[in-house]
Amino acid sequence: MTQHLDPVDLAQALIAVPSVSPATGAVFDVLEAALTPLGFTVERFIDGIEPDGPVENLLAVRAGKGPAHFGLAGHLDVVPPGIGWTSDAFAPEIRGDLLYGRGAVDMKGAIAAFVAAAAATPVEAGTISLIITGDEEGPAIFGTRALIEHMSARGVKPDMILVGEPTSVDRLGDMVKIGRRGSVNIWIDVPGMQGHVAYPHLADNPIPKLVAILAAIDAVSLDAGTDWFQPSNIEFTDIEVGNGATNVIPASARARLSIRFNDRHRGADLVAMVERLAHDVEPRAKVVGKISGEAFLTPPGDLSELIAEAIHAETDIRPEMSTTGGTSDARFLHALCPVVEFGLTNATMHKLDEAVAVADLHRLTAIYRGILMRALLD
Amino acid sequence: MTQHLDPVDLAQALIAVPSVSPATGAVFDVLEAALTPLGFTVERFIDGIEPDGPVENLLAVRAGKGPAHFGLAGHLDVVPPGIGWTSDAFAPEIRGDLLYGRGAVDMKGAIAAFVAAAAATPVEAGTISLIITGDEEGPAIFGTRALIEHMSARGVKPDMILVGEPTSVDRLGDMVKIGRRGSVNIWIDVPGMQGHVAYPHLADNPIPKLVAILAAIDAVSLDAGTDWFQPSNIEFTDIEVGNGATNVIPASARARLSIRFNDRHRGADLVAMVERLAHDVEPRAKVVGKISGEAFLTPPGDLSELIAEAIHAETDIRPEMSTTGGTSDARFLHALCPVVEFGLTNATMHKLDEAVAVADLHRLTAIYRGILMRALLD
Repeated sequence: MTQHLDPVDLAQALIAVPSVSPATGAVFDVLEAALTPLGFTVERFIDGIEPDGPVENLLAVRAGKGPAHFGLAGHLDVVPPGIGWTSDAFAPEIRGDLLYGRGAVDMKGAIAAFVAAAAATPVEAGTISLIITGDEEGPAIFGTRALIEHMSARGVKPDMILVGEPTSVDRLGDMVKIGRRGSVNIWIDVPGMQGHVAYPHLADNPIPKLVAILAAIDAVSLDAGTDWFQPSNIEFTDIEVGNGATNVIPASARARLSIRFNDRHRGADLVAMVERLAHDVEPRAKVVGKISGEAFLTPPGDLSELIAEAIHAETDIRPEMSTTGGTSDARFLHALCPVVEFGLTNATMHKLDEAVAVADLHRLTAIYRGILMRALLD
Repeated sequence: MTQHLDPVDLAQALIAVPSVSPATGAVFDVLEAALTPLGFTVERFIDGIEPDGPVENLLAVRAGKGPAHFGLAGHLDVVPPGIGWTSDAFAPEIRGDLLYGRGAVDMKGAIAAFVAAAAATPVEAGTISLIITGDEEGPAIFGTRALIEHMSARGVKPDMILVGEPTSVDRLGDMVKIGRRGSVNIWIDVPGMQGHVAYPHLADNPIPKLVAILAAIDAVSLDAGTDWFQPSNIEFTDIEVGNGATNVIPASARARLSIRFNDRHRGADLVAMVERLAHDVEPRAKVVGKISGEAFLTPPGDLSELIAEAIHAETDIRPEMSTTGGTSDARFLHALCPVVEFGLTNATMHKLDEAVAVADLHRLTAIYRGILMRALLD
């Protein structure tokens, strides 16, 4: 037995509750109220304190008859609306074919489609979980990471997870993400000794050392890419000396770089490599790395294939399997089981007048249902 | 016939008139009043406007019977006193063996010794000029350069010039400057195109280009020094990108360097070299040079030898002939004739409680007189 739930109605109800990251409260009430009548057991908890929290997280599980367990993951927090919307960002409005509102594509629309798809999936199928956080757009300290701990404590373990991020580019269904690059920022601080430019023997200029370090880093080729990933890439993002005086040798010099890397590398190894190159030039150089996320890949296989089939059945499109773009919560969820991301078109995400085609919400619901049916019944 | 003039009295009178750079007015009145009774024809003029002016300059000439013409050059402006003097910086005070006051060694004391030495030199000797500016410590736009133009218009052309800057280090007479290094500051601005670090193909990062340019400059060896000069030296003094965002490729990157160079080089050639190295990497890089002064050398010869003899006669010291240190107005005067610098000990110049040994003022007067006698009678 299945129930009917209109994803457009639910998307509007979710958009109507402001939930700038980190989110708690009312927007989760709306989701819980939609899930409970469908037979989901809903658990909610709040974690963290300011400034990175508090963050609300929601785990909803509907035990099915079949052995398989499919997770649908996403977030109810949104980025700030900014100024200049045609209509109120938190007053959902359908104009022509489009539903406008902050979160329409990223990703309250997809969460509405999750719920509508689950409603339309018979309980004879396997188990469905919704893994929903209130902090994906922010630092993500108390969001999906806390949810994963909670799931572990509860023994909730999906066999595969779909993250509903807006991965489509030109048309719904044209792109699925099967991995993401990792990301690490690295700071290099080279000490020296201040002095007068006319007496360099009494000083120790850190700039030539920093230049030599950066030249050595610039000469590094991390890899040539893989079957599924573009080449890993190093970008220098800042150099700072802060010396206003033309006749002074500065006391220190700093640089910062950002590495986006594929699954050939791990963040800590890249930091160690940069530190080694820096210490080859100046053993006193300080190198600090901050890893935003490790690379992950769910190699094309059963999960991506059933998603591609479901997409093709509804849209006639064969999606491209991609690993491009920034990071998402899939970087955490990948530790649990195979993870793939698929959702609405991303052209308006994070922008003014964010909007989703009403038809796409229905089509996405049908695709998600197709995915659930294939994963939980076949 | 000679007259007696106490250099300590005149030094005190000059110090008693505050004359922070750029200087005009009263301090020149004091000097003129001392020179006129000695037979000098004094011309004064004010040049320039704020912020680099107005600047007063003084040219005093006493025509002698002999054919030779000796110029004594210096400045009446002083650097600001700063806070923390034991006694008022502009209230000259003799405590123990020392005369305290701003300008005591740099260089009102030396100008007092110029006048006292000229007073003690018979008019039967050759011509003596005093070439005195009110802006040596500042930008020097309207100072000695304007005096040189004025001298040219008046047909005043010394055969040799002594600049009375405080060149002595530990004891009066231990060092004479026969040259100075040139100095140029160079700014390099590398343009790029801003973008997101995750999409470097849509951006153009200026930092690797700036690093390559600086590495090429760092590899340059200008020279190995000469008989009289230490090697020319390049120091990087600043790098600035100003990009606060870890995920942004910056739009531009800038560096600044300072070159202190010997007489193998000219400032404009060094700027052109840096520009060539920059354009090899990025033809759109902007390179701007600002030359503070060209290098000059008065090779050891008649002038330095007669100065050394005069020093030795009074102090038993054979002075070191040096080209070390920063720039002075000798960089301009060198265009006229051979120039050498010699004056008081420089330990307290530009510092709190600037002071000169009273005995040194008398000894410097004797040395300057010895120089004039050797130059104008022999």
